[in-house]
Amino acid sequence: MSKQDNKQDIAGNTGTLFRDNAPRSGKEKLKIIPLGGLERIGLNITAVEYGNSIVVIDCGMAFPEDDMLGIDFVLPDITYLEENYSKVKGFVITHGHEDHIGAIPYVFRKMTNVPILATRLTMALIENKLEEHNMVEAVARKVVNFGDIADFGDIKVEFIKTNHSIQDASALAIYTPAGTVIHTGDFKVDYTPVFGDAIDLLRFAEIGRKGVLALMCDSTNAERPGHTMSEKTVGASFDRIFAEYRTSRLIIATFASNIDRVQQIINSASKYGRKVCLEGRSMLNVIGTAIRIGYVDVPDGALITLDEIRNYAPEQIVLVTTGSQGESMAALSRMAANLHKKVKIMPGDVIVFSSQPIPGNEKAVSNVINELSEIGATVIFEDTHVSGHACQEDIKLIYSLVQPKYAIPVHGEMRHLRAQAAVAESLGIPKESIFILHSGDVLEVGEDRANIIGKVQTGTILVDGLGVGDVGNIVIRDRQRLSEDGIIVVVLTLEHYTNRLLAGPDLVSRGFVYVRESEDLLEEATRTVEDAVWRCIDRKISDWSKIKTEIKDDLSEFVWKRTQRRPMILPIIMEAYP
Amino acid sequence: MSKQDNKQDIAGNTGTLFRDNAPRSGKEKLKIIPLGGLERIGLNITAVEYGNSIVVIDCGMAFPEDDMLGIDFVLPDITYLEENYSKVKGFVITHGHEDHIGAIPYVFRKMTNVPILATRLTMALIENKLEEHNMVEAVARKVVNFGDIADFGDIKVEFIKTNHSIQDASALAIYTPAGTVIHTGDFKVDYTPVFGDAIDLLRFAEIGRKGVLALMCDSTNAERPGHTMSEKTVGASFDRIFAEYRTSRLIIATFASNIDRVQQIINSASKYGRKVCLEGRSMLNVIGTAIRIGYVDVPDGALITLDEIRNYAPEQIVLVTTGSQGESMAALSRMAANLHKKVKIMPGDVIVFSSQPIPGNEKAVSNVINELSEIGATVIFEDTHVSGHACQEDIKLIYSLVQPKYAIPVHGEMRHLRAQAAVAESLGIPKESIFILHSGDVLEVGEDRANIIGKVQTGTILVDGLGVGDVGNIVIRDRQRLSEDGIIVVVLTLEHYTNRLLAGPDLVSRGFVYVRESEDLLEEATRTVEDAVWRCIDRKISDWSKIKTEIKDDLSEFVWKRTQRRPMILPIIMEAYP
Repeated sequence: MSKQDNKQDIAGNTGTLFRDNAPRSGKEKLKIIPLGGLERIGLNITAVEYGNSIVVIDCGMAFPEDDMLGIDFVLPDITYLEENYSKVKGFVITHGHEDHIGAIPYVFRKMTNVPILATRLTMALIENKLEEHNMVEAVARKVVNFGDIADFGDIKVEFIKTNHSIQDASALAIYTPAGTVIHTGDFKVDYTPVFGDAIDLLRFAEIGRKGVLALMCDSTNAERPGHTMSEKTVGASFDRIFAEYRTSRLIIATFASNIDRVQQIINSASKYGRKVCLEGRSMLNVIGTAIRIGYVDVPDGALITLDEIRNYAPEQIVLVTTGSQGESMAALSRMAANLHKKVKIMPGDVIVFSSQPIPGNEKAVSNVINELSEIGATVIFEDTHVSGHACQEDIKLIYSLVQPKYAIPVHGEMRHLRAQAAVAESLGIPKESIFILHSGDVLEVGEDRANIIGKVQTGTILVDGLGVGDVGNIVIRDRQRLSEDGIIVVVLTLEHYTNRLLAGPDLVSRGFVYVRESEDLLEEATRTVEDAVWRCIDRKISDWSKIKTEIKDDLSEFVWKRTQRRPMILPIIMEAYP
Repeated sequence: MSKQDNKQDIAGNTGTLFRDNAPRSGKEKLKIIPLGGLERIGLNITAVEYGNSIVVIDCGMAFPEDDMLGIDFVLPDITYLEENYSKVKGFVITHGHEDHIGAIPYVFRKMTNVPILATRLTMALIENKLEEHNMVEAVARKVVNFGDIADFGDIKVEFIKTNHSIQDASALAIYTPAGTVIHTGDFKVDYTPVFGDAIDLLRFAEIGRKGVLALMCDSTNAERPGHTMSEKTVGASFDRIFAEYRTSRLIIATFASNIDRVQQIINSASKYGRKVCLEGRSMLNVIGTAIRIGYVDVPDGALITLDEIRNYAPEQIVLVTTGSQGESMAALSRMAANLHKKVKIMPGDVIVFSSQPIPGNEKAVSNVINELSEIGATVIFEDTHVSGHACQEDIKLIYSLVQPKYAIPVHGEMRHLRAQAAVAESLGIPKESIFILHSGDVLEVGEDRANIIGKVQTGTILVDGLGVGDVGNIVIRDRQRLSEDGIIVVVLTLEHYTNRLLAGPDLVSRGFVYVRESEDLLEEATRTVEDAVWRCIDRKISDWSKIKTEIKDDLSEFVWKRTQRRPMILPIIMEAYP
């Protein structure tokens, strides 16, 4: 049995792993609880609860904010799900982006026997992740088709076709005895998608006609007026670029997960007689997966490997690469910095950024563009990207079809949630029927009224290397302090019992000043510490914490006066047994 | 005698301080040498050299890049000017922005007796700076008018009226026996400026008619097609906002140095019956200076102080504040974070960002917008700003008037310089007549040919607190390392001569892990170090650097295996004299 068959088999059998899904109905309340992170970092993971059933929508991770020094990524605190483990009937995943699936390997260490439901590509990407963590066998999974209704007892979930910057994106209709909730997932309205069908507006309308309690709608582009352009418009731009730069090597940077984008590059390449070479770990990973399950149409011989590019003239190839966000370790950044082992940027190369910088990455992207410009490459970033998220008019369309009683803007920063709230209000939804939820808020939704009735524990868990949760506020604050002005370590050895000064005090600094050019300063600093230590000894102070405080106070005052810096000062007293 | 008179007097007398300016002519070569900083950080300071004369254009500082941890600002290395001190005849300053005047207090510690020439507002802002550093008396200055030609012997400099986001901006025509160079400064073409005249295009044309060797033109917006909009269009937006939000408090954040912007807010406020309150140190400083010299027209009683706002209803005031870039210590950021002592943001407040985020500040600005949205304020940032820099069509206009033989794009990142080079080429200037200079390049310009003939020492000097230049690459690298994974200090005391272990090894970490939750890890780490130390002692290794290396190697291997982190490991051995 092939690996793929095996997977399908597991997926097919997961139904048997489902937990007790018998409806208990009664007059329970419907609760919606976002479990994702803190104010500043929104993590996509939301519990929908009715009676004894909880269904969880998405399971995302986030990348750290600038001031979370040394942190690799951020996970949700799922204490609430652990405490209500017996109620959790399943996870439904809207699409395969990291901010919706990235926390699965961590969360499912604790959610044993809870099944994950997702569409085909989404599940394939989840499986890649589980394989990396050796968890494929351990997690129950079921691949769903659009139109399928998953039965979790009191809660039933229908998957509805949408469009997004990744294929197989899904909205969810969540049916409960208390009413229906529609969650759009991340979506756009694309009447001419590159692959598959347009968003199933008809189904939104049908469900809307029957009555919808609440709409949870993507807010990412709620500040932007108008409609989001079709992905196909980027294909037209690619054709123009391929036509204009027939004699140059083309390098196109884009998101690895934007499979339709890569498909369109392959289409243009085939039209203009170029070979396509994919570069970057995640590019090879995601597109490889998409090819395997038939979501990308690659003509025979269209793809070449990185080692094969030397067999072709520059104008015969197009490189599709990661690094469109200026990430320092990604392939394009390494090429621009002349650190890539196999690709060297040449004057005359044409580099296309088929992307928009994610907020916070603008400077990094600009640095890469500067490096490429310095080498003499032509850099193109106009008309080469469209968003995957609905703009205001698209959002209005969904509201108008769904006709919800309550609006719960989701997915976006506070400014975006507020912008969608304003859109909802402009459509006639009363202010008091619009809820902007914070992580942990428990929103109880009923036909008559909806309100926030409480708060459950949520938060973020920081991941640094292998450590999950062993870095918190104190550690981060220390790192910030260290990053600003460095550290001065003061060590001294006292004899046990007699408290006689056996060695030191010695000062060692790191990240503070050039030691060689600041000898006088450091000598004076040492004298300052010596004075403090001798003062303590003379006064027969034997309380070490007192001695440390004296050292800290005197030294930091001296350093501030002389340099206006506040390095961390770390006094260490050792005890020697003679 | 009033303070102001005194200043004018000094300025009037500085002519007597001028150095020997007799022309030496002969067949010297004209050299243009950018002295500003490294590749990534461009500092505006350029030497124009002919024979025994050097005139320096601008004297700017820069703000640090993200990875220059703990650095407050960046200054140019002026070794070349120090080495050629006797040649330096004067500094000519194009306008009063920090990136053109900020380094003056530092540079002029070494450039004694060299005069500074600038237009009136520019000089007033320079004087503010000199006062802060108690250097007013020490620096020779002369205020110039547009049309004035300053005589530096072989080099003469004419000041030409331009428009920019600060008043009194000037282009420079630099006349030498070898030919004329035009430097635009930072400029835009504004046919309807708020204050004063439009750019003196006629003078550009006249000088162009006589023949111009080289044009050094502002590149900031060279990637943008079209024309830059007039500052007055923002005034029209303000009127619309004042008309629409008659019942709300208005808070407008903008650049303190954009005096015309503040003038337009004062105009709208007066039209719509609001009092204007200025907030933020630099806002009060710059606008105060502009008011003092009559560059802002304030109706009687239009301005109120922060303490007076309590006497007015919210809809009767408009607050003009710093913080449009999300700077954490600026007034608006403190208001948004509820840290401002006198202004508390209320639901219903309307906050206008009359600015564009400078690249790198996007995330900080967005965070402030999120905080304001959270409170329930309305945030407006559309049509409330125009750039102060010329777009492509404006740049083409200047080239067409000046008709230079050589093009030297200035002011901007590499991508912008390249973009202007492309514009120049599109106007028919041959590729080999376009020079993109790097800091330190010596460009020799003659009628027949121009080429880079060498390189002089340049660089950046990092300023951290009071320390100028005592923080360099090693210190910054240490700070980066510390910021990523913290530090583990290992201390032990050995007895002098016997090398007996008297105390330790003890481990103390900061910024590494939560100590309480990682006791096992730290205990094992201590054992690892103990093993290394005892191994050294058993082998009678007395070379301390050897012992330190063993400790470092063993401990970092252990830590990496267990956590995949690389904290800085700092072994300190103390010697005790028994």
